[in-house]
Amino acid sequence: MKHAFPFSAIVGQDDMKLAMILTAIDPKLGGVLVFGDRGTGKSTAVRALAALLPPIQAVKACPVNAADPSEVPDWAGLDTHEMVERPTPVVDLPLGVTEDRVTGALDIERALTQGEKAFQPGLLAQANRGYLYIDEVNLLEDHIVDLLLDVAQSGENVVEREGLSIRHPARFVLVGSGNPEEGELRPQLLDRFGLSVEVRSPNNIEDRIEVIKRRDAFETDAAKFMRKWGKEDRKLRDRILAARAKLAEIDTKKPALRDCAELCVALGADGLRGELTLLRAGRALAAFDGDTALARPHLRRVAPLALSHRLRRDPLDEAGSAARVARTVSEVLG
Amino acid sequence: MKHAFPFSAIVGQDDMKLAMILTAIDPKLGGVLVFGDRGTGKSTAVRALAALLPPIQAVKACPVNAADPSEVPDWAGLDTHEMVERPTPVVDLPLGVTEDRVTGALDIERALTQGEKAFQPGLLAQANRGYLYIDEVNLLEDHIVDLLLDVAQSGENVVEREGLSIRHPARFVLVGSGNPEEGELRPQLLDRFGLSVEVRSPNNIEDRIEVIKRRDAFETDAAKFMRKWGKEDRKLRDRILAARAKLAEIDTKKPALRDCAELCVALGADGLRGELTLLRAGRALAAFDGDTALARPHLRRVAPLALSHRLRRDPLDEAGSAARVARTVSEVLG
Amino acid sequence: MKHAFPFSAIVGQDDMKLAMILTAIDPKLGGVLVFGDRGTGKSTAVRALAALLPPIQAVKACPVNAADPSEVPDWAGLDTHEMVERPTPVVDLPLGVTEDRVTGALDIERALTQGEKAFQPGLLAQANRGYLYIDEVNLLEDHIVDLLLDVAQSGENVVEREGLSIRHPARFVLVGSGNPEEGELRPQLLDRFGLSVEVRSPNNIEDRIEVIKRRDAFETDAAKFMRKWGKEDRKLRDRILAARAKLAEIDTKKPALRDCAELCVALGADGLRGELTLLRAGRALAAFDGDTALARPHLRRVAPLALSHRLRRDPLDEAGSAARVARTVSEVLG
Amino acid sequence: MKHAFPFSAIVGQDDMKLAMILTAIDPKLGGVLVFGDRGTGKSTAVRALAALLPPIQAVKACPVNAADPSEVPDWAGLDTHEMVERPTPVVDLPLGVTEDRVTGALDIERALTQGEKAFQPGLLAQANRGYLYIDEVNLLEDHIVDLLLDVAQSGENVVEREGLSIRHPARFVLVGSGNPEEGELRPQLLDRFGLSVEVRSPNNIEDRIEVIKRRDAFETDAAKFMRKWGKEDRKLRDRILAARAKLAEIDTKKPALRDCAELCVALGADGLRGELTLLRAGRALAAFDGDTALARPHLRRVAPLALSHRLRRDPLDEAGSAARVARTVSEVLG
Amino acid sequence: MKHAFPFSAIVGQDDMKLAMILTAIDPKLGGVLVFGDRGTGKSTAVRALAALLPPIQAVKACPVNAADPSEVPDWAGLDTHEMVERPTPVVDLPLGVTEDRVTGALDIERALTQGEKAFQPGLLAQANRGYLYIDEVNLLEDHIVDLLLDVAQSGENVVEREGLSIRHPARFVLVGSGNPEEGELRPQLLDRFGLSVEVRSPNNIEDRIEVIKRRDAFETDAAKFMRKWGKEDRKLRDRILAARAKLAEIDTKKPALRDCAELCVALGADGLRGELTLLRAGRALAAFDGDTALARPHLRRVAPLALSHRLRRDPLDEAGSAARVARTVSEVLG
Amino acid sequence: MKHAFPFSAIVGQDDMKLAMILTAIDPKLGGVLVFGDRGTGKSTAVRALAALLPPIQAVKACPVNAADPSEVPDWAGLDTHEMVERPTPVVDLPLGVTEDRVTGALDIERALTQGEKAFQPGLLAQANRGYLYIDEVNLLEDHIVDLLLDVAQSGENVVEREGLSIRHPARFVLVGSGNPEEGELRPQLLDRFGLSVEVRSPNNIEDRIEVIKRRDAFETDAAKFMRKWGKEDRKLRDRILAARAKLAEIDTKKPALRDCAELCVALGADGLRGELTLLRAGRALAAFDGDTALARPHLRRVAPLALSHRLRRDPLDEAGSAARVARTVSEVLG
Repeated sequence: MKHAFPFSAIVGQDDMKLAMILTAIDPKLGGVLVFGDRGTGKSTAVRALAALLPPIQAVKACPVNAADPSEVPDWAGLDTHEMVERPTPVVDLPLGVTEDRVTGALDIERALTQGEKAFQPGLLAQANRGYLYIDEVNLLEDHIVDLLLDVAQSGENVVEREGLSIRHPARFVLVGSGNPEEGELRPQLLDRFGLSVEVRSPNNIEDRIEVIKRRDAFETDAAKFMRKWGKEDRKLRDRILAARAKLAEIDTKKPALRDCAELCVALGADGLRGELTLLRAGRALAAFDGDTALARPHLRRVAPLALSHRLRRDPLDEAGSAARVARTVSEVLG
Repeated sequence: MKHAFPFSAIVGQDDMKLAMILTAIDPKLGGVLVFGDRGTGKSTAVRALAALLPPIQAVKACPVNAADPSEVPDWAGLDTHEMVERPTPVVDLPLGVTEDRVTGALDIERALTQGEKAFQPGLLAQANRGYLYIDEVNLLEDHIVDLLLDVAQSGENVVEREGLSIRHPARFVLVGSGNPEEGELRPQLLDRFGLSVEVRSPNNIEDRIEVIKRRDAFETDAAKFMRKWGKEDRKLRDRILAARAKLAEIDTKKPALRDCAELCVALGADGLRGELTLLRAGRALAAFDGDTALARPHLRRVAPLALSHRLRRDPLDEAGSAARVARTVSEVLG
Repeated sequence: MKHAFPFSAIVGQDDMKLAMILTAIDPKLGGVLVFGDRGTGKSTAVRALAALLPPIQAVKACPVNAADPSEVPDWAGLDTHEMVERPTPVVDLPLGVTEDRVTGALDIERALTQGEKAFQPGLLAQANRGYLYIDEVNLLEDHIVDLLLDVAQSGENVVEREGLSIRHPARFVLVGSGNPEEGELRPQLLDRFGLSVEVRSPNNIEDRIEVIKRRDAFETDAAKFMRKWGKEDRKLRDRILAARAKLAEIDTKKPALRDCAELCVALGADGLRGELTLLRAGRALAAFDGDTALARPHLRRVAPLALSHRLRRDPLDEAGSAARVARTVSEVLG
Repeated sequence: MKHAFPFSAIVGQDDMKLAMILTAIDPKLGGVLVFGDRGTGKSTAVRALAALLPPIQAVKACPVNAADPSEVPDWAGLDTHEMVERPTPVVDLPLGVTEDRVTGALDIERALTQGEKAFQPGLLAQANRGYLYIDEVNLLEDHIVDLLLDVAQSGENVVEREGLSIRHPARFVLVGSGNPEEGELRPQLLDRFGLSVEVRSPNNIEDRIEVIKRRDAFETDAAKFMRKWGKEDRKLRDRILAARAKLAEIDTKKPALRDCAELCVALGADGLRGELTLLRAGRALAAFDGDTALARPHLRRVAPLALSHRLRRDPLDEAGSAARVARTVSEVLG
Repeated sequence: MKHAFPFSAIVGQDDMKLAMILTAIDPKLGGVLVFGDRGTGKSTAVRALAALLPPIQAVKACPVNAADPSEVPDWAGLDTHEMVERPTPVVDLPLGVTEDRVTGALDIERALTQGEKAFQPGLLAQANRGYLYIDEVNLLEDHIVDLLLDVAQSGENVVEREGLSIRHPARFVLVGSGNPEEGELRPQLLDRFGLSVEVRSPNNIEDRIEVIKRRDAFETDAAKFMRKWGKEDRKLRDRILAARAKLAEIDTKKPALRDCAELCVALGADGLRGELTLLRAGRALAAFDGDTALARPHLRRVAPLALSHRLRRDPLDEAGSAARVARTVSEVLG
Repeated sequence: MKHAFPFSAIVGQDDMKLAMILTAIDPKLGGVLVFGDRGTGKSTAVRALAALLPPIQAVKACPVNAADPSEVPDWAGLDTHEMVERPTPVVDLPLGVTEDRVTGALDIERALTQGEKAFQPGLLAQANRGYLYIDEVNLLEDHIVDLLLDVAQSGENVVEREGLSIRHPARFVLVGSGNPEEGELRPQLLDRFGLSVEVRSPNNIEDRIEVIKRRDAFETDAAKFMRKWGKEDRKLRDRILAARAKLAEIDTKKPALRDCAELCVALGADGLRGELTLLRAGRALAAFDGDTALARPHLRRVAPLALSHRLRRDPLDEAGSAARVARTVSEVLG
C-alpha cells in the first residue's frame, strides 16, 4: 500500500489545514472548497487528512458503512449485522466518472443473469460517513456538481432512474479543489460549500527549500519519513477526537449569535447559510482550542473561511474577498 | 426518520406561508412559485408544509393513491380495494430526474423476464392527491417543466411512448422554487403557476438571530424542538381542514366578480387565468379566515400572490411587480 | 369521464368558432391555426368542438377507423369487418411525443417475443377521420410539424423506417395553437394551414365577468352546466350535418372564381393554396348559411380566415394582416 | 388507388414540363432541380409525370427491378427470373427518412431470428430505373443529399456499413424541389443536377382561374376529369417513346460541339458538366421535336435549363441567371 | 462490368497524370492531393489509373492481399497459402463511411451467433498494396482524414477498440481530391500528402471540344472506345513497370541531395518531408524517363508537385504557390 | 518486424535526445512534451528510444507487466507467477482511441457468453513500466489528456464505470508531441509534463543533407543501416543502465536545493513541480555524466528542459521562454 504524505509534514498552508480539521470535528459544516494553482499541494493535503482520521465502527459488508443495524438499507440484503472497524472512507472522484457510478444504478450483471432489478451502490454509498474529494471541481459537469452538493447537504442519496426508486444515507464531507483561472463557479454553488480557503506557493525561499526537502525525503524513503512524522500526526488526531467529544457542550451565548448576524449583514452576504456556518465553525474551533464557550477570537479566526466565498462581487472594491472580510471583521468585532 | 422543521417555527415569510396554506385549502389553485435567493428557507418550508398536512384515505397498494376503487387504473392489476390512511404524498423531484421516471415508462424488468409490455408508474403517479416539489425550476429542462405544468393543469398524465398508451389521474399541487438571477422563466410558464411569492433573507438583526437560534436548536435536538412547536402546527392543520370543509359554501356575489375583472383589466394581465385564480384564492382565504362571503379584504390580500407574475414587464415603471399590483389594488378596490 | 366545456357556452371568439365549424363541414379545408396568448380558451374550444361533433361509422377494431372494409390495412390483420359507431376521434398530441408514436413503429413486443416484424400504429392512425390537436405548435420540433402537415395534406401516412414500409390513410383536421411571441412559424408552414384565426382575451368587463361566471359555474357543478347548454350544442351539430349534406351542391359560378383570384393577386398572396382555400371555405359557409350558391358575402366573411397568414410581411404597412385583408376585400369585392 | 393529376392538365409551367420530358427521353441527363415557392404545383407535376410514363419490363420479385437476369444481385436470392411488366417506379423520399432506409441496411429481423447477416434493400433499390423525388431538398441533411447525388451519377449504390459490403445498380432520375428563400444549395450540389427550372405562380388572372377551375374539377370528380385529359396524356407518352427510340441516331456535328463549348466559355460556367448536359439535352429535344440532327434552335431552347444553375454569381450583374444565359445565347449563337 | 475511361484518353492535365504515374512507380511517395473545381475529371483520372495498373500476386483469400504467406495476419484464419493474381486494388471511400468500416471492427455477426470476438477487416485492409481514393477530402471528418494519413504513412493499421487489439499491413497510395473553395485543409494535413497538383477546366475551345467529343464517344459506345485507346494504355503500363524495376538503381549523387536541401531552405518549406519527397519523386521520374542518375531536370519537373503545398502562406507575394516554386527553382537550380 | 530508426543516428536535436534519456534514467520525472513542426522527427525519436531501452523482468502473462507476484492484480486471474523477460513496453495511442480502450472496460465478450462482469485491461495496463506515446496531444480530447496525466502522476489507474471498480498500477513515462500552432495547451496541462523541448528542422544545409542521406539509406536498406549504427546504440543503453544504478547515490547538498528554489522564484514559475523536476532531472544528468553529486552545471543544462513550459507568459518580454530561462539561469547561477 502506498503511503500518504503525513498531514503534519505539510509546510505552511495554515488556512487549508485548519479548514480540513474543522470539518473533521463537525462534518455538518458542509465541505471545503480549496482555491489555488496546481502544484500547491491540494490533493496531497486531502489524502494526508484521510490518513490522519480515526477509524469508524460500521456494520460489516454494509455498502453504506452503516453505524448501526437500523441504518442498513433493505436492498443491501444483509443477514447479519456484525460490527467492524474501518478506516474513515475517503472516496476520490475520478475524472470522467459517470452519473450512474456516482449515485449507483441498476446492477446490469444481475439484471442480465438473474432477471432481477437490483441496485448497485455507487461512490455516494462508499463515501457515507467519510470524505469525497473532487480534484478540479471546475472540470466536472454542472449537473454532477449540483447532484453532489444536493446530496452532501441533505445527507441522503435519492435515485429515481431506470425504474429504481432508492434512498440511502450519504453523509460525507465534500472537498473540492478549484482553479479560479479555469472558469468561475456559479454563486449558488459557492454558497453551498461550508468553508473556502485559498492556497498559494510559498514565496519565501527557506519555505520552498523545506517543501522540496521533505517531498524529496518522502519520495526517496517513504517508510522512514512516516516514522519521523507519525507522532505529530497521532497528536493531531487525538486533539480532533477530543474536540469532537466536547463540541456539543460549547456554550453559545446570544452576543455570539448577534456577532454572527451583524457580521453577515455588514458584509451583505446573501442568505442565512453564512451565519450558520460561521456559528458552527466557531464552535468547532473553540472545541479544538480546548475552550468551553464560543467567543470573538474564534469568530475572527474562522470568518474568512466561512464568508469569503459568499460576498457579492464589489467592482469598486479592489481588495479581494478575504481582505474585505478581514476589514469588516475588525470593524464589527473590534 | 428525519424530522421536518415545523411549519409554525418559520420566522416571518408570511406571503410564502399563506400561499402554501391556500393551496392546501383549494388544491385546484394551481401551484406556487417561490422566488428568492438560496438560503432563504424555501425547501425547508415545503417540507414543513408536507409534515403539517392531514393524511388521505386511499386504496391500499394503489400506485396512484386512488380515493375510491373507481379511480384505480386497470394497469395497476389490483384484485381488492381495501382502504388505508396515508400521509399526504409529497414528492421531491431530484436533480437529473429523467422523463421516464417522471411520467412512468415501460417496465423493462417485466418486458425482459416475462415478455410483457407493462407500465411502471412514475413520480406523477406517486404525487397524485399530494404535492410535487421542484427545487430550482430554472435548472430543469424546459420540456420537463412544460410536461409537469400540463399535467398539473389537466390533472391527468398521458403517456404515449415506447408503444404504451396510458392515462392516469395526477392531481397535485406543484411547488417550484426559482432564482430570477439564474435566468428568467418564460411568461407562458409563469402564467401557469397559480400563485407566486418572493422571499428574502431578513435584514433585521433580531429576526436573523431568531432564525439562527431556532435552526441551531432544531439541529442540536430535533425531538425536543418538535415537542415545543407541535401544538402550533396542529392548530394550523385544524384550521386548514375547517376551511376546506367550508370552501364550497363561500358566497360569491357579482360585485366580487366585477372586482376581479376590473383589477385584471387595470393591470393589463393577459389571459383569464389571473381572474379565476384571484377569485378562487380569495374564496380560500375567506374560508381560512372563517368568513362566509368573498369580500374586498380577501381580494386585497391575495391579489399580489395571484397577479404579480402575470404582469407584462413595464420598462418605464421601476417599481417591482408587487408594488404595481398593490398600487392598482388601492386604485381599483379603494 | 370528464365533461368538456360546451362549445355554445364559449363567450365571443366568433372567428375561432366559425373556423372550427367550417372544418367540420369540409375536412379538406386543411387545418386551423389559432394564434393567441395563453388563457384565451384555445384548448377549451378544441375539446368543446370534439364533444359536439357527430359520431362516425367505422370497421370494428380497425386501427385506422376505416369507413368500409376496403380501407382496412393488411397489417391490421382483421378477420371480420363488422361496422360500429364511434365518437369522432380527437387525438391530442402530448408534449414530448416521439416520432415513432406519431407515425407508428415497429412493435417491439412482438419483435422480441414472437420474432415478427409487425407494425404498431401510432397517433396518425388513431386520428384518421377526426381531429389532431397540437397545443403550442411552436414547441414541437420542426421535423414533427413538417411530418404532420405532410400527412394532413396527402391524407396518407408513409412509414419508411426500421425496415418497415407501411402506408395507411390518415385524413384528419389539424388544429394547432401558437403563440407568436414564442417565435414565428416559417412561412412555408403557415401556408399549409387552411385557416387561421387570432384570439384575444376580451377587454370588455361584462364579457370577462360572463366568462369567469360560466367557468366558475362549470367547475362547481359540471353536470348541471351541461344540461343547461346541451340544447344549444345539439342545434349546432344538426346545422353542421345539414351543411355537410348540401356542400357538394353549392353552385360555383365563374365570377366567384374570378373574385378569389383577384383578391389573392391584389393581396400578393404567394402560391395558389390561398385561392383554393378561399373557394372551399366560402362554399362551406354558404352551406352552413343554408344558401345554394357561393356569393360575395361568403367570401367577404371567410377571406380573413383563409388569407391573413399567407401575406408577405409588409414593413411599411403597420396595420396587421387581418386589417390588410379587410381593406383589400372592400377594394376588390366592393 | 388515388388518381394523380394529369400531366397535360397542368396550366403553363412550360420549362418545368419540358425538363421533365427530357429526362424521360434521356435518363442520363442527371436530374432536375425545380426552384420555386410552395403552392406552385411542383409535387403535383412530378406525380403527374410518374403517372404518364410507360411501364418497364423487369425480373419478377427483383428488389432492384432488374431489366434482365444478369442484373439481379446475388443477395436477392432469386431462383427464377420470370419477366413482368411494372409501372415506372417513382419513389418519394419521405421527410425524416433515415440513411439506412435510403441505402438499405442490415436486415435486423433476419439477424435476430436466423443469425444471418442479410441485406435489406432501401429506397435506392426501389428507385432503380425510375424516379426519385425529394420535396424541399433544402430540408434534407447534407450528407443524404451528397449520397443521393453520388449514386444518381454513378448509377450504383455502394453500402459499406455494419459489416456489409454491397453494391447494386441504382440508376434513376433525381427530381428535387427547392425554395431558394430557405437557404441556398452549395454550388457543388447545384452542378450535379443536370437541369434546373424556376416556377412561379401565374400572375395572369385568367390563368389563375383556369388553375383553380381544373383543380376544383379534379377534386370534385377525379375519375371524370381523368377521362377528359387521358387522351392528351397518351399522346404525350407516345411522343416520348418515339423520341427515346430515335435518340441514338440524332446526328451531332462538330459545329454543335463548338457551340456548346463556346457558350460555356462565354458564360464562365465551371467544369465540363455544363457542356455535356447541354449537348445531351439538345439531342433529347431534337428527338422530341422529330428532328434528325442537333441544331442551334435546340441548344437555344435548352441552354437556360442546362446552364442557369452553373454560373458563378456575378454581383455586378443584377439580371438573374436565366437572363444572363439568354443574353449570352443570343450573342454566341446569334 | 463497367469500363473505366482510358488513362491515355484524358486530354491535357499533364501534372495530374505525371503525379499519379510517379506514385505508381514509387508507392512510398505518399499520396497525391488533387485540387480543383468539380467537373475537371479528377475522379475519372483516378479510376483510369486503377484500370491501367498491372495486377499483383497475392495469397488467395487473404483479406490484406498479402504478398507472401509471412504477411497473412493470424486473425485471417487461413489454412493454405496458394498464390493468385489480382487487379491492383483500388478502394473508393464512399461518402458517409463510418470509422469502423474504414479500420475494421468487431464482427457483430460472429459475436452474436458464435459468441466469439473476431475481427472483421475494413477498407484499409482491402486497400493494402493498392490505392485508396477519397473524393472531396474536405467533406470527410477530420479524425478520419487524420487516421487515413497516419496509416498511409506508417503502412500499418492499428485497431484498439471494442476490446480488439489488431494490427495489419496497410500500405496504399492515398489519392484525395479537394476543392479549396470549400474550406482549407490544415497545413499539417497538407504536409502529409507526398505530391499535390492543381487541375482546371481547359480554357481553350479546341481542347474543350476534344474533351466533350471523347466523353460523348465513350458514353455512346464504350467498348469501341476502349479498343481505340487500349494500345496507348498498355504502352504506358509497360513504361511504369520498367521504371519500377530500375528505380533502386538510379544513381543519387551528393550534389543532387544538396539541390534538394537548398531548394527547400530557399522556399522556407517546413520540416524535412519536402526534401525526401523531392528526392524520391525525382528518382521516380528519372526511372520513368529511362535515365540512370537523378539530375537537375528531374528535380525541376517535380519540384512544383512535391513542394507547392508545403510553403508557408506569404501574404506579400501575390503569385500562387506554384509560381513561387517555379521562380525559386530557376534561382537555385539555374 | 519493421526496424526502428536507430536513436544514435538522429542528427542533432540534442535537447530532445537528452530529455528522453533522462526519463529513461528516472521514470518518475514525469513525461516529456515535444513541441515542434511536423517533419522534425518527433515520432521517429520516440520509436528509436523504445528500441534502445533494456528489457524488463515481468510476471508471465500478467496484463500489467508486474515486476513481482505481489503486484499482479486479482482480476488477472493468474495461477502461476513465472518470471519472463520482455522488451520495455512502448504503447502508441492511436488517433480516435476511445476512453474504454485507454482505461480498460467491461469485457463484453465474457459478459455476453458467460454472464460475468470481468475487467478487460486497456492501454494503461499495457504501458505499465514503459512508455506511452501520444502524437499530437493537441488533437486528443481534453478529458482523455486529463485522464492520462492523472494516471501518469498517480501511477495508478482507477476505473469506476459500468459497475466496475478496478485499480491497477500504471507507471509509465508519457511522451507527447504537440504543435503550438494548432492550439495551445492549458497551463495546467503543461505543468504536469516533467520536461519539455522544442525541435526545429535544421537550417544548416550540411545537416539537412546528412538527415536526408541517413533516412534515404535507412529506407533503402534498413538491415545494413542497423548494423552500422547498432554499436552506438548499445553504448548508449549501457550508459543509461549505469546511470540508473547510481541514481540513488547522487549527493544532494542544501546549496543545490537553494539553487533550485531561487531559480524558480526568479522565474516566477507557479507551483512547486518545477523545483522538484529540476532537482530530479539534475540528479539524473549527474548520474548519466558519471558524477557523484548534483552540481550547478547539471542544473544549468536541465533548467530549460524542466522550466520553459512553466513560465507565465510575459507579454513585454519578446524573447521566448527558453531564452528567459537561460538569462535567469546565468543571473542566478552565475
